[in-house]
Amino acid sequence: MNKAILLANRPVGKPAESDFKFEDIDMPEAKDGEVLLKTTYVSVDPYLRGRMSDAKSYVPPFELNEPMSSAIIAEVTASNNQDFKAGDYVTAGLAWKLYQTSNGQGLTKVDPSVGLSAYLGVLGMTGLTALMGLQEIGKPKTGETLVVSGAAGAVGSIVGQIGKILGCKVIGIAGSDEKTALLKSKFGFDEAINYKTTKNMQEAIAAAAPDGVDIYFDNVGGDISDAVIFNMNKWGRIAICGTISSYNDTEASQGPRLQPYILKNSMLMQGFIVSNYAEKFPEGVKQLSDWLKAGKLQHAETIVDGFEQIPQAFMDLFEGKNEGKMVVKI
Amino acid sequence: MNKAILLANRPVGKPAESDFKFEDIDMPEAKDGEVLLKTTYVSVDPYLRGRMSDAKSYVPPFELNEPMSSAIIAEVTASNNQDFKAGDYVTAGLAWKLYQTSNGQGLTKVDPSVGLSAYLGVLGMTGLTALMGLQEIGKPKTGETLVVSGAAGAVGSIVGQIGKILGCKVIGIAGSDEKTALLKSKFGFDEAINYKTTKNMQEAIAAAAPDGVDIYFDNVGGDISDAVIFNMNKWGRIAICGTISSYNDTEASQGPRLQPYILKNSMLMQGFIVSNYAEKFPEGVKQLSDWLKAGKLQHAETIVDGFEQIPQAFMDLFEGKNEGKMVVKI
Repeated sequence: MNKAILLANRPVGKPAESDFKFEDIDMPEAKDGEVLLKTTYVSVDPYLRGRMSDAKSYVPPFELNEPMSSAIIAEVTASNNQDFKAGDYVTAGLAWKLYQTSNGQGLTKVDPSVGLSAYLGVLGMTGLTALMGLQEIGKPKTGETLVVSGAAGAVGSIVGQIGKILGCKVIGIAGSDEKTALLKSKFGFDEAINYKTTKNMQEAIAAAAPDGVDIYFDNVGGDISDAVIFNMNKWGRIAICGTISSYNDTEASQGPRLQPYILKNSMLMQGFIVSNYAEKFPEGVKQLSDWLKAGKLQHAETIVDGFEQIPQAFMDLFEGKNEGKMVVKI
Repeated sequence: MNKAILLANRPVGKPAESDFKFEDIDMPEAKDGEVLLKTTYVSVDPYLRGRMSDAKSYVPPFELNEPMSSAIIAEVTASNNQDFKAGDYVTAGLAWKLYQTSNGQGLTKVDPSVGLSAYLGVLGMTGLTALMGLQEIGKPKTGETLVVSGAAGAVGSIVGQIGKILGCKVIGIAGSDEKTALLKSKFGFDEAINYKTTKNMQEAIAAAAPDGVDIYFDNVGGDISDAVIFNMNKWGRIAICGTISSYNDTEASQGPRLQPYILKNSMLMQGFIVSNYAEKFPEGVKQLSDWLKAGKLQHAETIVDGFEQIPQAFMDLFEGKNEGKMVVKI
């Protein structure tokens, strides 16, 4: 009655179904000091692609033939730990299993009245990634122009909304007309560009940003980023949050060298992972909660049903099939 | 008896003799409030290449058929300005003329006892560029590894020495065995690599920097920079001071996309021009003077003789013919 999803093969290029293996495993029991957790929501995120490889990266790789893991919301179904009781909901980085035990370390209780999946999105790593990258690297000032790539994704849709709250002109780049419409109607972006139907991205960005681009929050890398960077102003800041266009590359892709542009405009380009700013998480979560409660942040999710759908939901990220945070409900 | 050097053509690719024009001009006279200046030393610098083009850049372009200009040391030969007297030496951004007048604005008196040309080098923009880029972007900490490209050049040779003063392991990259020998013997670099005779730069840097590279002070761009960047550690900082490898390019050169590496290692890449830090110049000049007087900074110059040699001295920068600051003595 218990199941796990293991890493069967390290993907070459795009991950495939055959890279994952479902396995029936024993139902665990909560020993003294432990809780039994039933998985409720599973976060699937592009960065997991890096952990499927054994190349040096900012997070350690998954082990072959061991369960994969990600941020998860779970229900406590039995507790021998005084800090938790049956019926509590918690979030943590947990294994892709239907049931697992925990000694309680690293578990954070969440409030189901807010909507459980929000803790995988706007109030979790997703929202903090958006806030930290924009605030600590982008340093937005009122009246500046912010471009966000992967704008309809989990992080991007929040970045753009925070940019608007902070007084920026916000331009989003996404991969379908449905997404660009949503960026403007639901998330309040000033402009949105569908890169799949735009012939000359550099010109399209120039037209959308007549005063040039001051801040670029980059989720994608590749040609799209070149087109944005060639439109940037003196003192431009580029926060590199993701390079999803390259995650499935089997060799380093080539592009125009950017250093001459970065030099000419005294620009800053900085890569980050949200945990770099861990000491700012408490104030960050408070800020995001305040905005959420005030109705200033719209929370978009693509929710897929069923444990067996986790690998497919993950693979769909690379096809851009999600709007906002991709979550699997069990 | 007076001469000027004009910009005759905007170069395509490498500057050539035909891009410059010598012209006999009238000898000026110092009017009321003015001084007559006799050019003594002329600084030639790679950034002037940018000003010869009319592409958008961080400094305005030179006008066609007008004199070029750069940092110059001049002697006051006649004065109708109470702030200056004949025999004073001054420095400023001045035209490439044997004689010119000035109303005194922007002229800084210099002390000939220190060696006049030092004010074009270690105590001038060159020294400040080295100090500001390393201090404000590189942020060196004791025990870290610093790589400098264009290390035998005017800025690079000072960057490496400051790195040593601040407790870094310093590795220099230069283009001849004479230069690499000088980096170690005269400037105190720990390691020096001749990129012209090294087959695999990435491996050579890895061997010289077994703990990885924390700071890269980049004067060159291109393949050399790729090789350094692929050896960088988490939290690595790249200060882009110049991209001399690309200055004569007629189209944007291609290279591996760097964003995935910058992301994985939470690295920072920032371009700068020394004037970004103008408010820190007084303390910077004081720091450099202290180190110079204490014998901690060796000052290297390549001095070429004769006004008519200015264009050739400038062109020689792109062939790496200088060791340290290239200066023309009139």
